[in-house]
Amino acid sequence: MAGHLGRLSAGPCWRALARGGCGELRAWSQRCAAGRICRPPGTAGTEHSRGLAHGPSSGGGSRPGAGLATALAGLAGLATAAFGHVQRAEMVPKSSGVRSPSPERPQEDDLTRRCSCFMALPVTDLGELRKRPGDMKTKMELLILETQAQVCQALAQVDGGASFSVDRWERKEGGGGISCVLQDGRVFEKAGVSISVVHGNLSEEAAKQMRSRGKVLKTKDGKLPFSAMGVSSVIHPKNPHAPTIHFNYRYFEVEEADGTKQWWFGGGCDLTPTYLNQEDAVHFHRTLKEACDRHGPDLYPKFKKWCDDYFFITHRGERRGIGGIFFDDLDSPSKEEVFRFVQSCAQAVVPSYIPLVKKHCDDSFTPQEKLWQQLRRGRYVEFNLLYDRGTKFGLFTPGSRIESILMSLPLTARWEYMHSPSENSKEAEILEVLRHPRDWVH
Amino acid sequence: MAGHLGRLSAGPCWRALARGGCGELRAWSQRCAAGRICRPPGTAGTEHSRGLAHGPSSGGGSRPGAGLATALAGLAGLATAAFGHVQRAEMVPKSSGVRSPSPERPQEDDLTRRCSCFMALPVTDLGELRKRPGDMKTKMELLILETQAQVCQALAQVDGGASFSVDRWERKEGGGGISCVLQDGRVFEKAGVSISVVHGNLSEEAAKQMRSRGKVLKTKDGKLPFSAMGVSSVIHPKNPHAPTIHFNYRYFEVEEADGTKQWWFGGGCDLTPTYLNQEDAVHFHRTLKEACDRHGPDLYPKFKKWCDDYFFITHRGERRGIGGIFFDDLDSPSKEEVFRFVQSCAQAVVPSYIPLVKKHCDDSFTPQEKLWQQLRRGRYVEFNLLYDRGTKFGLFTPGSRIESILMSLPLTARWEYMHSPSENSKEAEILEVLRHPRDWVH
Repeated sequence: MAGHLGRLSAGPCWRALARGGCGELRAWSQRCAAGRICRPPGTAGTEHSRGLAHGPSSGGGSRPGAGLATALAGLAGLATAAFGHVQRAEMVPKSSGVRSPSPERPQEDDLTRRCSCFMALPVTDLGELRKRPGDMKTKMELLILETQAQVCQALAQVDGGASFSVDRWERKEGGGGISCVLQDGRVFEKAGVSISVVHGNLSEEAAKQMRSRGKVLKTKDGKLPFSAMGVSSVIHPKNPHAPTIHFNYRYFEVEEADGTKQWWFGGGCDLTPTYLNQEDAVHFHRTLKEACDRHGPDLYPKFKKWCDDYFFITHRGERRGIGGIFFDDLDSPSKEEVFRFVQSCAQAVVPSYIPLVKKHCDDSFTPQEKLWQQLRRGRYVEFNLLYDRGTKFGLFTPGSRIESILMSLPLTARWEYMHSPSENSKEAEILEVLRHPRDWVH
Repeated sequence: MAGHLGRLSAGPCWRALARGGCGELRAWSQRCAAGRICRPPGTAGTEHSRGLAHGPSSGGGSRPGAGLATALAGLAGLATAAFGHVQRAEMVPKSSGVRSPSPERPQEDDLTRRCSCFMALPVTDLGELRKRPGDMKTKMELLILETQAQVCQALAQVDGGASFSVDRWERKEGGGGISCVLQDGRVFEKAGVSISVVHGNLSEEAAKQMRSRGKVLKTKDGKLPFSAMGVSSVIHPKNPHAPTIHFNYRYFEVEEADGTKQWWFGGGCDLTPTYLNQEDAVHFHRTLKEACDRHGPDLYPKFKKWCDDYFFITHRGERRGIGGIFFDDLDSPSKEEVFRFVQSCAQAVVPSYIPLVKKHCDDSFTPQEKLWQQLRRGRYVEFNLLYDRGTKFGLFTPGSRIESILMSLPLTARWEYMHSPSENSKEAEILEVLRHPRDWVH
């Protein structure tokens, strides 16, 4: 036990030093408190457009095919992290050149500059990424790495206590991932931000599931090559007045027998407060709505409803939290346009969430409020283990990297028999919202 | 919160007062510490016999049909408690006659005497039970009520702190149950002992699942009347050196179109220690083996293996605990003989477990040992929510009594990212046993 905790607190961490549009990241050994937020380049994302749509079974969360959608979503989400057969805690050396641009290397290219922000080197070889700069796989891998770094640094700055451990792992069948976890910090109980970039041939089971949700996929010699990548995160603060957040953005490509490629994006972001704070809820939803609205006025309402439908703990008759957005199979009007939408969403994570944590992380609270938080953590565990299709898909896939999937679970949780908040209490207030989702932005 | 805790500590509880072979139980309002153990009458169970066997797919835990077996097992286990549509905290009045035999009622019958031991009146009306004294449904209902009372009283006596809450609930479609829970006591973190006695028509889904495991069931107008009953319990002590126990004994009857009845028993008992104590493991397994051996020498080895196979957390590659016994579809050589076997098993619960708790409940322990216990509690939650087929069957059945199913979850649990015990530690020692089950009795 002690050995493990020691490993975490002594784990490597990146410090951001301002350098133009992006900070330079250096590994340092103890504390991240002084880290500045590293703003990814080109984050404006203000281009407006219309007409985003998702695949054959588009519509809402209750479609029969959604199970598969989400299961496969897992491939590029938390569950993608499942595929690591070799797990290594491997950092980019401080003197690797990528991280320490020096006067001797004035000609560093844009890729090198972008990489200097990341928590670790990209999963894909830099040479390969340079060869295909315009390919969506390259663009998405860089986006998820940037999102990971941006979120980790914002969290480390707020926490000012524990540091992120950075685990880089490889998948035997192709690809790998980077899992960053901050545990038992000053502000955060547990914060995990994981990326994965995997490829190979889709299993027959996975292909069958895809077909069941309306995708016509022509195999070649029974094989179906795929690429999947995503960033996924769950962040549990200690203070019961600071909410938990989850987000996940992912991209999937399948190559059919005739060489044509099917592709789609999926993702979402949702908030789980222990107590209702109306102002926080409005800020969170409004920030997501603004990100969506840049790409079409119908997106936020549709994806907000989908989120409420998806994060439903059926046996409790309540949602996990106060929602946000959730979407899958998004495959029109074009890769570029959907990518820009996903980029806007990913870039909305920090502004939607960090202000809420900063506002509440030092709030005073009673033992009763902490207890209620722990009971809500129990419900979070129930949702993740019983209903979350990405989690289950990952756990039931042989050779999964279990630790990256289950990093979504809180550090601590509680189950009391027959707990029921008293009428008109603050506990009853949030339960009411979990049972009857509200419109927060109109 | 406070209201709930208040309810628990003020909840009704039974005190046993010695009276012949069985104690008389009286409801009292605060503490159970002084309660004596109420020994059920006729507990010797020493009759020896051979040849117990289970149904069509008998053999072991890895049979394809076992999923259903256990799912339906849930009907009479923790998950049966799922079917309560009306939940009431209703106690037998102190002056009901059943509980207070007085000089005015010298002629009280055997049933009344037996009922005086129970945590609450039987689910089935006393008049109905009197009408069919030799029927297996009557015998099994009385056995599970006796087991519940016996275990609750032994636990309350050891705890000497908190009292059991007794919730009696009804199932709209037929039958009901009694859930007894002691929470946050001196010795026990959470101890739940639940019985359920339900009947009605089997859903098409359930009938289909039964057929899939080899049961040929002829419906009448598409209906398949069934009766199911069982006792189920999970007990989590506070001290990390005192182990968790789970047990469940159940009986199932299905009436076919031509009036013939199929019946079978299922059940088991398994131990989950935080740390390995060789002596405790041997005591536990030896007590179960002795109970099994009275009914056939092959039973313990077969059911011990089945238990090791069933309580397997696949994604962790480890068992939930150090096993015990597990069986299902036990339907030969005769109802009576299998009942006597189940009776022996049920009566082995207290002697197999209570001495271990008494021995360790006041052991000193370090914060690190408590932490390891909490991590193991996390694994317990993982098994119950991801794999336990009874739990899932219950949770996914509309109208379930969720609180009775999830009373199996510990009060508190913990998940640390990448926790790994150091080599040759006591934590590594138990993990080794969970990965490679041992033979404890030879």
